[in-house]
Amino acid sequence: MKLARISTVHGPAPAVLEGESWAVIRDMFDTELIKTGERIPLAQARLLAPTVPRIVLGMAHNSGPEDRKIPPQAFSKSSRTVVGPGSPIEIDTGLGAVNIEGELAIVFRNFARRLSPEEVPAAILGATIGNDVTAIDQIPLDEKMTQVKNGDGFTPLGPVIETDISWDNAPIDVAIDGVQAASGSTAGLAWTIAEQVSYLTKYLTFGPGDVLLTGSPQTAAPVMPGQNVSITIPQIGTLENPVVALSGSASQS
Amino acid sequence: MKLARISTVHGPAPAVLEGESWAVIRDMFDTELIKTGERIPLAQARLLAPTVPRIVLGMAHNSGPEDRKIPPQAFSKSSRTVVGPGSPIEIDTGLGAVNIEGELAIVFRNFARRLSPEEVPAAILGATIGNDVTAIDQIPLDEKMTQVKNGDGFTPLGPVIETDISWDNAPIDVAIDGVQAASGSTAGLAWTIAEQVSYLTKYLTFGPGDVLLTGSPQTAAPVMPGQNVSITIPQIGTLENPVVALSGSASQS
Repeated sequence: MKLARISTVHGPAPAVLEGESWAVIRDMFDTELIKTGERIPLAQARLLAPTVPRIVLGMAHNSGPEDRKIPPQAFSKSSRTVVGPGSPIEIDTGLGAVNIEGELAIVFRNFARRLSPEEVPAAILGATIGNDVTAIDQIPLDEKMTQVKNGDGFTPLGPVIETDISWDNAPIDVAIDGVQAASGSTAGLAWTIAEQVSYLTKYLTFGPGDVLLTGSPQTAAPVMPGQNVSITIPQIGTLENPVVALSGSASQS
Repeated sequence: MKLARISTVHGPAPAVLEGESWAVIRDMFDTELIKTGERIPLAQARLLAPTVPRIVLGMAHNSGPEDRKIPPQAFSKSSRTVVGPGSPIEIDTGLGAVNIEGELAIVFRNFARRLSPEEVPAAILGATIGNDVTAIDQIPLDEKMTQVKNGDGFTPLGPVIETDISWDNAPIDVAIDGVQAASGSTAGLAWTIAEQVSYLTKYLTFGPGDVLLTGSPQTAAPVMPGQNVSITIPQIGTLENPVVALSGSASQS
């Protein structure tokens, strides 16, 4: 099942995919979805970021088997970095090089604290595509990652949330201006998604709509203003965002 | 002028203090406040966290003059850690010692990026009291502060936002169970608030309602479940929160 947040005349609305249109629903976190009756044809729908999270965490050093030698660790991105499909990633070239990272992003359905790995799937609504944009030249200056990870438009999410997905074996392809720049699979991550969530819920509570960017399995690529990034996870779709030079204006999700 | 978020029969509502009652307003970020006509007597008003931020940053190593020898640095707390007056700080004693830190918390009015120190005041709505709860025994395990700073109820804010305040000379008193445990003043911080904001807006955009915890000028104290914390900044008021053992339930702001 595919869920989205769509721009409507009444404001952003959650919706479920039915054939060639989006059926607007009351709340994507309901156990049984309640349709409002409003339908929007696919071609007319403008998709927003599929969730407005209060927590956005990304996994550090989770890119391959070597990374299992130390405990999992996460960094925070602010909710304000979240943007939807088509929204710009704004980079300040004065702050050095920037990478995009194509990742599977987990969206929580329930409050989740102190979960065993076995309890994790029931707490999760589904997965979307996340782009964990990273100002890599700031890393040596800020191990806390605040100035590394929080630029405008630095967390594109979308286009949809897929509720039925093989999290631990999802291929990820990254293209810059239509040319393949990197590819990998969540099978290449150091820690499984259930292990990551179990670890993090020792320390904090995720809630409905919150997001975990699960790590970059060799799916990073450098970008510059003027380029377009597309990240494809076949079960979910393709997330596309332009890269622009920072204008000073604020991003909206 | 004092602003608050109040629990009403219609849900949370912003309000401005007028004499012995709160006058409900349309939006505390309006340039000219628009009153709805609804008034709630002080004694009947239940105050919530005065803002629901998308960004909550705290200042690292900002406690005294020595800290000016290295650049300012911030860590992220999630929006989900924010709670209001009276809500519990839930600590997991299995994760070691916990400190509370009484701080002046700045609330932004406008989008703010690349501001000079002189431009900072115009971007700020006012100040509230922040309690930057910190699981100090996790610091050596996690320099990114994710597992240090993001427990349930780890960012009490309130009781109100004061729009007319001397940010850089505000006394802060911390009491545990009614006994003074620490005291300081924002005059003791390494970097002024305008300097902090100017630095951080090189890297990211704050928006309306976002919060910066400006650092702990010797205003930290250890706490245990069963205790009550009260933090007083005379121009703003007193923020009180009980400390409880983690129940596994989620916090609400």
